[in-house]
Amino acid sequence: MRVAVVGYGTIGKRVADAVSVQDDMRLVGVFKTTPDYGATLAARKGYRLYAPDDKRESFRKASLEVSGNLTDLISEADIVVDATPDGVGAENKSIYAKAGKPAIFQGGEEADVAETSFNALANFENAVGKKFVRVVSCNTTGISRVLSALKLGGLGIKKARIFIARRGADPREYKKGPINDVVPNPATIPSHHGPDVKTVLGDIDIITAAVAVPVTIMHMHMAYIELDDAPRREKIVDVLASTPRILLFDVKAGYNSLAQIVEWARDMGRPRGDVWEVAVFSDSITLNGRELYLMYGVHQEAIVAPENVDAIRAVGKLSDKWSSIEKTDKALGIVTHGKRYG
Amino acid sequence: MRVAVVGYGTIGKRVADAVSVQDDMRLVGVFKTTPDYGATLAARKGYRLYAPDDKRESFRKASLEVSGNLTDLISEADIVVDATPDGVGAENKSIYAKAGKPAIFQGGEEADVAETSFNALANFENAVGKKFVRVVSCNTTGISRVLSALKLGGLGIKKARIFIARRGADPREYKKGPINDVVPNPATIPSHHGPDVKTVLGDIDIITAAVAVPVTIMHMHMAYIELDDAPRREKIVDVLASTPRILLFDVKAGYNSLAQIVEWARDMGRPRGDVWEVAVFSDSITLNGRELYLMYGVHQEAIVAPENVDAIRAVGKLSDKWSSIEKTDKALGIVTHGKRYG
Repeated sequence: MRVAVVGYGTIGKRVADAVSVQDDMRLVGVFKTTPDYGATLAARKGYRLYAPDDKRESFRKASLEVSGNLTDLISEADIVVDATPDGVGAENKSIYAKAGKPAIFQGGEEADVAETSFNALANFENAVGKKFVRVVSCNTTGISRVLSALKLGGLGIKKARIFIARRGADPREYKKGPINDVVPNPATIPSHHGPDVKTVLGDIDIITAAVAVPVTIMHMHMAYIELDDAPRREKIVDVLASTPRILLFDVKAGYNSLAQIVEWARDMGRPRGDVWEVAVFSDSITLNGRELYLMYGVHQEAIVAPENVDAIRAVGKLSDKWSSIEKTDKALGIVTHGKRYG
Repeated sequence: MRVAVVGYGTIGKRVADAVSVQDDMRLVGVFKTTPDYGATLAARKGYRLYAPDDKRESFRKASLEVSGNLTDLISEADIVVDATPDGVGAENKSIYAKAGKPAIFQGGEEADVAETSFNALANFENAVGKKFVRVVSCNTTGISRVLSALKLGGLGIKKARIFIARRGADPREYKKGPINDVVPNPATIPSHHGPDVKTVLGDIDIITAAVAVPVTIMHMHMAYIELDDAPRREKIVDVLASTPRILLFDVKAGYNSLAQIVEWARDMGRPRGDVWEVAVFSDSITLNGRELYLMYGVHQEAIVAPENVDAIRAVGKLSDKWSSIEKTDKALGIVTHGKRYG
């Protein structure tokens, strides 16, 4: 499967890297509109660069070789991963359709850009053989994994109420805020995450509220989930611990905050210190009858990278759900110890 | 009523100022252990300084006149407000008891330091004539006001689940964190706030969870409250708008975040930019059947100042609940337009 990555920002560069380490797909190249350091680093990795015709000269001046334009890139690929800024994907869709190539969009696009929204644990099957698929955004991915884990563990979810302290900006976004402020984001309830979870988990009773905080490293969720029954805490711990792409972190081992999770990822030698897993603070897992409480971190830059790889496999019918998840995880180096695959 | 303030930090200095503007009580002086700029500014306001005997010399070197030691201050007062660091109040209690003087403690002390915990809206009557009273902490005060407003408005509360993004430190605390981190605080659930609310509101079903964020200006609460019935949204807005010490802020008027609330307080000419009211983001008030959602800011430095004044009146039997609240609010300049007092 030959993959084109269009848009080489926070998500695009991670998807390109994740695709490159899989043995059943190949990165054709990346489409980029500016010859900045991102382009230079992509070229250094050996990724072929594609750019708009009117930008060729600026790439040449930056000593960057351009292999073609968007049409060239698409024609050489079997599938496109569109990781352009919010809304641009929808504009690009007609180009992909005209070329007869399937495409994966990101969560910044409206759900109706695609035939189905996607989260590997939640609804891999829905994307099999589809033409246009949308990988849901980072926070929605985090929620979808946690709720899917509970469902896969046989636990019925009566309702989910999730309260999110969003990171204000990604580390490289030097112009965004807030600093020293907490911003209702949005001030209205629900935030878009609740409805977005329904695009992959179906008609679940979920409401989310979110505030933005002066942090760049990760999102933090405080989740309140009402279950159909009152399980023992050990059951929840077991279900979360055995689900792929969810990891538990104990305070007694020194994991006191999101920064500790990031430090762990850096020490593990992860590229860019990426945390592909939902990082659950195990001490926070609390049961009050049928009410389950937990807190977990979501690494906004990294969490959707493995999901994009699985979406490619689903669209290309390269393998089934559990084989794809396992394959992606092993190739990336996601912690798989004791995880159940299917 | 002659009032002594012991401990002149974030809370103490505000209580001293709040007492000074009431016409039925008089500030005798403040007890301070270090001759720092706080002491200099207190002296400049004309507050008499009291200090430990072994610190007299250091105060003299800083050109600060000392009127006596702790025993002297207590003997000249009818009541003590203890605003010392967490735990010190409990140590001081025997001194106040020995002198036969009633005392008000702060929320940093354990509840058992006093005969009753206190929040003016929630349980003013419980403190009437008592010897030892504890004003609950800032977050607990915020929650107690909101829940009291609903109760006073005739709305039954089935359960309250409050998720708190705590400010990491006060503006002057230059050594505290976090920076660029979100810290489960505590990692276990519930945080102390839920149980603490029960000390003033009785046996209510409440659970709280909290994280600390890199903000110094205010706390933000995301509240989920299950009511006995399903009221119209207008009812909730009316109840909150007409309750003293709760204010509504609209996004359409430019109140997009906590920083806007603080800017409002500064523009209002408030001392230190203090926000004594619970600052509710009115756009966040949402009803989903019997479920009520709202977000509100709690100014950790200021919100308990009026509560301390009311606690003094309750202990001294100076006036009844609603007269005290109204008197305190008018003296401080708390926004009273359209509020119902009793």
